[in-house]
Amino acid sequence: MDLASIKDPTFLKKCSKTELKDLAQDIRHFLIEKLSVTGGHLGPNLGVVELTLVLHQLFDSPKDKLLWDVGHQAYVHKILTGRAAQFDQLRQYKGLCGFPKRSESEHDVWETGHSSTSLSAAMGMAVARDMKGTDEKIVAIIGDGALTGGMALEALNHIGHEQKDLIVVLNDNEMSIAPNVGALHSILGRLRTAGKYQKAKEELEMLIKKIPAFGGRLAATAERVKDSLKYLLVSGIFFEELGFTYLGPVDGHDLDDLTTNMKYAKKTKGPVLIHVITKKGKGYAPAENDEKGTWHGLGPYKMESGEVVKNPGPPSYSGIFAETLKKAAREDERIVALTAAMPGGTKLDQFAKEFPERMFDVGIAEQHATTMAAGLATQGMKPVFAVYSTFLQRGYDQVVHDVCRQNLNVFFAIDRAGLVGADGETHQGVFDIAYLRHLPNMKILMPKDENELQHMVYTAAKYSEGPIAVRYPRGNGFGMKLDVKLKELPIGKWEVIKEGGDLTILTFGTTIPMAMEAAGELAKNGFSVEVVNARSIKPMDEEMLAQLAMKNRPILTVEEAALQGGFGSAVLEFFHDNQFHSMIVERMGIPDRFIEHGSVSKLLEEVGITVPEIVNRAEKILPRKRQRA
Amino acid sequence: MDLASIKDPTFLKKCSKTELKDLAQDIRHFLIEKLSVTGGHLGPNLGVVELTLVLHQLFDSPKDKLLWDVGHQAYVHKILTGRAAQFDQLRQYKGLCGFPKRSESEHDVWETGHSSTSLSAAMGMAVARDMKGTDEKIVAIIGDGALTGGMALEALNHIGHEQKDLIVVLNDNEMSIAPNVGALHSILGRLRTAGKYQKAKEELEMLIKKIPAFGGRLAATAERVKDSLKYLLVSGIFFEELGFTYLGPVDGHDLDDLTTNMKYAKKTKGPVLIHVITKKGKGYAPAENDEKGTWHGLGPYKMESGEVVKNPGPPSYSGIFAETLKKAAREDERIVALTAAMPGGTKLDQFAKEFPERMFDVGIAEQHATTMAAGLATQGMKPVFAVYSTFLQRGYDQVVHDVCRQNLNVFFAIDRAGLVGADGETHQGVFDIAYLRHLPNMKILMPKDENELQHMVYTAAKYSEGPIAVRYPRGNGFGMKLDVKLKELPIGKWEVIKEGGDLTILTFGTTIPMAMEAAGELAKNGFSVEVVNARSIKPMDEEMLAQLAMKNRPILTVEEAALQGGFGSAVLEFFHDNQFHSMIVERMGIPDRFIEHGSVSKLLEEVGITVPEIVNRAEKILPRKRQRA
Repeated sequence: MDLASIKDPTFLKKCSKTELKDLAQDIRHFLIEKLSVTGGHLGPNLGVVELTLVLHQLFDSPKDKLLWDVGHQAYVHKILTGRAAQFDQLRQYKGLCGFPKRSESEHDVWETGHSSTSLSAAMGMAVARDMKGTDEKIVAIIGDGALTGGMALEALNHIGHEQKDLIVVLNDNEMSIAPNVGALHSILGRLRTAGKYQKAKEELEMLIKKIPAFGGRLAATAERVKDSLKYLLVSGIFFEELGFTYLGPVDGHDLDDLTTNMKYAKKTKGPVLIHVITKKGKGYAPAENDEKGTWHGLGPYKMESGEVVKNPGPPSYSGIFAETLKKAAREDERIVALTAAMPGGTKLDQFAKEFPERMFDVGIAEQHATTMAAGLATQGMKPVFAVYSTFLQRGYDQVVHDVCRQNLNVFFAIDRAGLVGADGETHQGVFDIAYLRHLPNMKILMPKDENELQHMVYTAAKYSEGPIAVRYPRGNGFGMKLDVKLKELPIGKWEVIKEGGDLTILTFGTTIPMAMEAAGELAKNGFSVEVVNARSIKPMDEEMLAQLAMKNRPILTVEEAALQGGFGSAVLEFFHDNQFHSMIVERMGIPDRFIEHGSVSKLLEEVGITVPEIVNRAEKILPRKRQRA
Repeated sequence: MDLASIKDPTFLKKCSKTELKDLAQDIRHFLIEKLSVTGGHLGPNLGVVELTLVLHQLFDSPKDKLLWDVGHQAYVHKILTGRAAQFDQLRQYKGLCGFPKRSESEHDVWETGHSSTSLSAAMGMAVARDMKGTDEKIVAIIGDGALTGGMALEALNHIGHEQKDLIVVLNDNEMSIAPNVGALHSILGRLRTAGKYQKAKEELEMLIKKIPAFGGRLAATAERVKDSLKYLLVSGIFFEELGFTYLGPVDGHDLDDLTTNMKYAKKTKGPVLIHVITKKGKGYAPAENDEKGTWHGLGPYKMESGEVVKNPGPPSYSGIFAETLKKAAREDERIVALTAAMPGGTKLDQFAKEFPERMFDVGIAEQHATTMAAGLATQGMKPVFAVYSTFLQRGYDQVVHDVCRQNLNVFFAIDRAGLVGADGETHQGVFDIAYLRHLPNMKILMPKDENELQHMVYTAAKYSEGPIAVRYPRGNGFGMKLDVKLKELPIGKWEVIKEGGDLTILTFGTTIPMAMEAAGELAKNGFSVEVVNARSIKPMDEEMLAQLAMKNRPILTVEEAALQGGFGSAVLEFFHDNQFHSMIVERMGIPDRFIEHGSVSKLLEEVGITVPEIVNRAEKILPRKRQRA
């Protein structure tokens, strides 16, 4: 069928099993074709085709609420709710978002991007429903990886206690972004083999019925034993213990099995958990046979061959980080690396190849990772937690309370700092300076290029006076030659990249090349602009700042980070706290709003972090008499 | 025995059971006596006397590591590690800290204050030990309430997976700060009655042995059944499922029972969980019979009668918040209140008396509470999450990702904002402005007194344009007359409290009276000082700021909050972003370090937020010619 003709999911009500099967095939073909051009989260979406069809057939969205945890598996949902035509612009500027988006469709009732939020939100919706006295169904679809996140466990606990009508679909694809870790996974593993249990428990049940003792002598005991027997007779023991009715395991690609169980769940009172087994990449051989997680989320590929279009660029910042950490770890056996389910994204998988015993993937558990790092540090180890800028938000209290307050040697390798592009609002790493800068004892660095990154990683690995964060952007470096010998950089020292006498641009990381180019433009207008690599964001180079203040020339700060409470504010604080009240300081950065998805260059343009804008803002504060000299 | 003579816990090795029993009695008497004067966490400490004695007898602290989760139950540990003599200054400035403190003793290996961190830290220490090849034991003592925190569950999951040698003592006192909630509690409840299980399972085991079928016909099945039988035969099923060896339940006041199990735990490989049942307040009738949680942590009391010395002051800010919320809830049935295990502290227990169906205590689960509030808001409800300033740090990512990003109507009632005093570093609510101000869509208010608080609570309850936070301090109001009629305050508008022409003090909340007094002092020196109640921290009153800029008079900002990225920085940002580069702005606030325990007035003095200091700083920026006129 022509998927672009779908306006809403009501047509599914009348679909026969055969029609649904055909539709599943059409959707798979559509996804494989479209994503081969745009890129996107292919594997997760191929895994939930049948599940999404059955959900939309049996429930009445948007009256009934479907909440997609993490949300990168909502493409099929988007197709069935009238958005197939927009897939050519998937994850592009002003195009279809890669995650649920309330402004996009009334069927997107909950926005996600980070994991493990759907159960808490579903609980809120269930309480709202019961207070209003309406009767909509609430269904949260959550993966086995997301279930290891602490907040999902907090929610399971509370939902089990409150006994609200609510359905949790556990989408168990045996592989979240990384091979799953944690004991929860082994429980799920055992449930998966429940076929065996089934037989065993049936035989035992038969036996118990036949034994006279159970009907006779033990009658009084039987009541007491009954509750214990529940353990024996229910395979979803973990969830039953928490107060859920457990259904499953269900074959997530079998429409009948899905339909039967979902219907049962729909009429069951109280919280229900349906355990659905799906296969990531289902129906597309390259994605099904994916061992490295390549097909979880990727760029363009060749549809026929499944050949992934290689990114031809220089090594990524993440790669340089991991390689450097390996070098540091060879010198210092106290170094231990931690990741929260992102061994591939952070490139710590490369580290683990050489040091398998010195890398821990703790699952989606940033809080635990942060505090475990603190625990390691109390014993003299040198823990390195590599984590995306926005995911560290989950560990904010742990950074404050456990790491900074105890002034422990934890090295935060903050990946994906700054705008990340296609993943959009939930992933733009623009807050980390603002949420870390006010923490006592914290140091924050950012390199201008991959060569400086390697020295910074080395510096942070050597550092032993408390917590230190090195933030670096998503994507590739410039292809620079890397110094063979690693060196320690002085913390709290900036570097003058270009000298000049009329105005100073203080900037760091990704915006340095722009500043240099702008300085070139301004030179054409007769202005001599100094450009400083302000690589130490906290502490700042107070000596240089004091010198700048003495010179009393205008200052322009440029940062690819939130303006409020950011680096520019720190510069203002310094000048005023040191009685340099008349300094002219102009700040550029990310404004006070969330930044949607799109290419990084497009987004920078949108927020006004560009060479022409730097020129404009510089001219605004340059001595008027000399402007356009 | 004279507890002050204890230097370290080694003497315990030689103590007989009788001596230990006597010592337990001495410790109880000591605590009841000392705390009757200083106040402190009496209930939790009376509950762990025997447990702490046995831990220090069987383990070798500080070589072996004892980690006290939350940490308010570490008084007995402090006594046994040579700090009894310091209890007269408990929780006082430069006196003994109410929580473990690494700088205080080598026996305090992990600092706490917030809950649920000990398991992650213990895991870090276990990994460090195994990498170093040493053999110390690692023991985390965690309450049943703290176990509902997501990060504790993340840690349990990871520990179960890694199978490191590590002991978790579950101190189940059937009551955390509030009556426990959540399904986990009901599991623990069932374990508590394990006596019954014990009998049932013994009978069944006997039976199974006698049945020929089990020895004969079912031999092949038996293997398969075996694993299932584990469910039947193990009462600590939940923890066993997660990969722990479960021991217990143990009577936490029976030295023999504790010793036997602890010895067994010590020699068991892999992670062990000992489930210890204790009674809060054990041995002191008023605390044992405590139903309201009064004796959890309290001020002075009369030792003989157990009469709590009443705080004679005016109603607390928390109380005014709760009373006002009740009024708002009578008008608006969409209002729902949430707390994370703090119904007493936030006074939401008062709200729950009138609206039991509209208040949810989710347990120690700030992440879940925040996102559940967001879920409620998506359905048109008006959720109010009352939470201490530092505990909301746990929900930072949820505030960013779920509430602010979706611009939902969640009202954060931020209690204990500013310095809190005796609880010290972990509880000083000085970061919330810095961690909330950079978030798009967030509004932040703080009242000058309890009358303004009630109007602000009403305003926030009515507000429907996105998230809003009202922060208010710990403790009592001024005893002001409260307006009978509640009104909505304009957001983004400040109030001139005192007019003046030489200098303007911008301040809010607790520092307003100081500013007024300082203005009076400065008047004596011939200066006319304007004092502004800058009650809307975000958005600021930009109209007034622009007017101030036009007047170009010096500005002094005063806040009882972190200086970096705080309100004063926001003022600097405004002036510079609007080209008022020559404004003289001096900032006062909490410096870039953690603030220890002590009375709030003492701490304010220490950080330099005092009337004389306001006078000094004002004079620094007042026009020189007129100084000391």
